[in-house]
Order: sequence, then C-alpha cells, then structure tokens
Amino acid sequence: AVEKKQSFSNRGKTLEDEINEANEFYLRQKLAVIHKKPVPLQIVKVEYPSRSAAVVREAYFRTPSTTDYNGIWQARYIDFEAKETENKTSFPLKNIHAHQVQHMQAIVEQGGITFVIVRFSKLERYFLLSFDVLKEAWDAMLVGARKSIPLAIFETSCLEIQTGYYPRLDYLKAVEQFYEQT
Amino acid sequence: AVEKKQSFSNRGKTLEDEINEANEFYLRQKLAVIHKKPVPLQIVKVEYPSRSAAVVREAYFRTPSTTDYNGIWQARYIDFEAKETENKTSFPLKNIHAHQVQHMQAIVEQGGITFVIVRFSKLERYFLLSFDVLKEAWDAMLVGARKSIPLAIFETSCLEIQTGYYPRLDYLKAVEQFYEQT
Ligand SMILES: [Mg+2]
Ligand SMILES: [Mg+2]
Repeated sequence: AVEKKQSFSNRGKTLEDEINEANEFYLRQKLAVIHKKPVPLQIVKVEYPSRSAAVVREAYFRTPSTTDYNGIWQARYIDFEAKETENKTSFPLKNIHAHQVQHMQAIVEQGGITFVIVRFSKLERYFLLSFDVLKEAWDAMLVGARKSIPLAIFETSCLEIQTGYYPRLDYLKAVEQFYEQT
Repeated sequence: AVEKKQSFSNRGKTLEDEINEANEFYLRQKLAVIHKKPVPLQIVKVEYPSRSAAVVREAYFRTPSTTDYNGIWQARYIDFEAKETENKTSFPLKNIHAHQVQHMQAIVEQGGITFVIVRFSKLERYFLLSFDVLKEAWDAMLVGARKSIPLAIFETSCLEIQTGYYPRLDYLKAVEQFYEQT
C-alpha cells in the first residue's frame, strides 16, 4: 500500500487542488456538479478607475458559516468541508467552526449528504469523516472531552479514501461506498 | 391585485435582500437550507498588518460561472440565479452569461431544480423563469432571434411569484407549485 501511495504522489498539491481536479473530472464526465464556493469577503472599499475594471482596495476575510464545497451528485445534494492537518496522530477540532457544524446538521435534517474530507498531510492519508462521527466528537468536546479526533477513530469509524491515477482523489467513490453501507 | 401589491411594498429592498430574507425564514423554519454564494473575486494582494486582521488590498471581480444561490429543499438540490430588470416589456438576455446557462443545463442533467427569479422592478412583478423557457429563448437568440424574453412569455409560460407579508417573496411556494405541475 505504501508503494502505491508513492507512485501516485500528489506532487505538492494542496487538498483543495486535488478536490478541484476531481470536480472538473466529475463535471466533464457528467458524474456530478460540485464547485468550491468563493472565499467569503467583507468588501469595504472599491475603486472604479476610468477605462479599466473595478478594483477592490479594502476587504476582510470572514469566518465561513457554511462549507467549502457543495453541489449535486446522482440527484442528491452534497455539501462538504475539506481540511488538512500536519498532525500525525489526531485531527484538531479547532479546524471546524461551530457555525459549520450547525450548517451540516441542517443539511442532514433536509436529507442531504454532508461530511468532511480530512487529509493527514504528513501521512498522505485521506479520510471521509461522516457527520455522525464528527458530531459525536464535537458534542463530547463541548462537555469537556478531548478537542481532537484520534487517528484511531478515523481508522475504525471512517472510510479511507484511496488515491489513484486520475483523478488522484476520487472521493465520490468513497462517498458512494459509505452511503451504500448506511 | 394592485392594491395588495402596494400594501406589501418592498420599501426599496433589492431582489437579493428579499431572497435573503426568505432564505433566513426557510432556515429558521427548517424548510430549506439555501445560501447566496460569496461574490467571486480574484485576489491579487493581501497585507498582513501586525496585530490586526489580514487585509485584501487588490482584488478583481470575476464573471460568475455558476449561479447566485444554491442549497437543499425537501431533499432536492436547488440552484438559481436572481435578476432584476428596469425594462417594462422584456427581460434582456445579456443579464445571463453563457457559462451560467451551461451550469444550469448540467444541473438539470443531474436531476436538480434550476431556474431564474426575474424581477421587473418598475412593474413590481416577479416571475419564476424555468430553465426550459430560458433555454428555448437562449438557443433561439444564438441562431439570430431576439435577445430578450418578452413579458408576454413570462405571463403565459412562467409562474408569477405572489408577494406576501413575511417573507415578502416566498419563492419556494412558486417552486413547489411549478414542480408539482411538471
Ligand atoms: Mg477547507
Ligand atoms: Mg444575480
């Protein structure tokens, strides 16, 4: 398994690059329509120079209240967050905002599919963290339990996303497998 | 009908304000989870002043390749664009980009719900322009027909969205009615 991972090296790509590559593939193959949402910015000042395009001169990054990606796959609504960690033994929950958990909860209640793709960068391992597993850890944290999800939980309770040649991160394969099981 | 419209005046709100108000209502009532996507910007320069938040100092507006709003409603993927026109007799198709039409086509192929909410501002009338009607006018334009959709087509082929007290623009009522018919 280690050799296979090395042969499909990600060549310094970010998780976002890899997901975007997969999404372009899905779109071309008519398998799904999933896009990254633009970064939410609070625009304060815009200049309109004559004879050229408007320029934003002052804007601030806002805390996202939803997730990074959403779209449609097999007539189903799909909505997820992508997170990388350098940590080798656990995924720190400070990577997720309370508003995002609330958003994901609302999606589940509407019958949508929602999860987090977690990449352990140093380990070159990717997991599909389902909302149920996230929510359990989140709620436990709120009443004083640990502020991270151990790698062991990923190994026992989450699907590991296998990398391949193209798209390298065919995450919908894992989604399909996970939602067939449940 | 005219009197009713006046009593529920929009008090200078933009169409976007009205849709956002409806979306907040739907979210609170657990009827749907629909959000406006952030404005797509090409960020060129970011400053990181010490002891304060990062500031975007140069960014440009990008042409949207998808639509303004998407989300989930009754377990279905919903994706739409909102457009206002000052024109009293027709909706100019220059308000829509080719990429958006392609995006909407892809959504239909995946089994999603997609449409345009058109507000004739001067007339205070709102219509649910279905993708079928839009596509027909769009394709006709590409082979030389008119570059706008006449109000008469809206009146005969689209559902008119009735305004009410709160949310003023309960557009999902029209969506429900439209998709029950088809
Ligand atoms: Mg992310
Ligand atoms: Mg718009």
